[in-house]
Amino acid sequence: MSISESEQQKWLAEAVQLATANVENGGGPFGAMIVRDGSVLATGTNQVTPTLDPTAHAEVVAIRAACQAIGDYKLDGCVLVTSCEPCPLCLSAALWARVGKVVYAADRHDAAEAGFDDREFYDLFSRPRETWPLPVGRLSLPDSFAPFQAWLSKPDKKAY
Amino acid sequence: MSISESEQQKWLAEAVQLATANVENGGGPFGAMIVRDGSVLATGTNQVTPTLDPTAHAEVVAIRAACQAIGDYKLDGCVLVTSCEPCPLCLSAALWARVGKVVYAADRHDAAEAGFDDREFYDLFSRPRETWPLPVGRLSLPDSFAPFQAWLSKPDKKAY
Repeated sequence: MSISESEQQKWLAEAVQLATANVENGGGPFGAMIVRDGSVLATGTNQVTPTLDPTAHAEVVAIRAACQAIGDYKLDGCVLVTSCEPCPLCLSAALWARVGKVVYAADRHDAAEAGFDDREFYDLFSRPRETWPLPVGRLSLPDSFAPFQAWLSKPDKKAY
Repeated sequence: MSISESEQQKWLAEAVQLATANVENGGGPFGAMIVRDGSVLATGTNQVTPTLDPTAHAEVVAIRAACQAIGDYKLDGCVLVTSCEPCPLCLSAALWARVGKVVYAADRHDAAEAGFDDREFYDLFSRPRETWPLPVGRLSLPDSFAPFQAWLSKPDKKAY
């Protein structure tokens, strides 16, 4: 996971190129890569509109592809290199994937300038849900803990 | 998107059942559904370990499937019904998918009790990144805005 600044700049420049080329190819202006030990495990570009998948952000695409490439659901020791600051979706994906480091070029304010909601969604996370335009609420059920009980009782569960 | 409380309870109970059954099937204890106008467009269960995809949370799986089912990358007017409070990944996916409402049964504290990081990741979002165990940093490049410039200049871009 040790990665020099000049190496980071090299990979970042490549991610930015992927992002720029992706606009011509009909996707969003975002590109990302998963790098480990000086090698690119996988790349990803934003594929939301071409694939009709609102979660197909460049980082998510790269993370999923890297996991398939190495046959694991964890990316320990990997660096997520991305053309733009990961939005809350992509940052959370990086956390769940257990990457070791994230480096980016443009930031959420650049994204906002281009019409993307990254900054707005960060802002939402810092505000109480009662103030959100999207209603998010709990409805308690008697058996709401049942799935977790089943999980805790399962001797051969695969934690992740 | 109007959905009565008894209807919500019915769908929620179904999501909880999906979650419980999924443990037996080798996945994580999470289940979700996308409901519109009283009909289920798609369901999803946690598939992280079976499919080696750290982003295959129940909500993400359901959102992706619903989009494929209706041929759109937006889920306007849909309700995301989920057995557990969406983690930051899934909540962000719901925001990007433009669902109209989210309802859940168990919460992040229940998830924590079962060993999942949902609450911890929410806590990270509320703390400065300098305090995170995961380094996330910017490296400014001269051409970091180039992808957005290409996007803004493209006359036939498909916004999402």
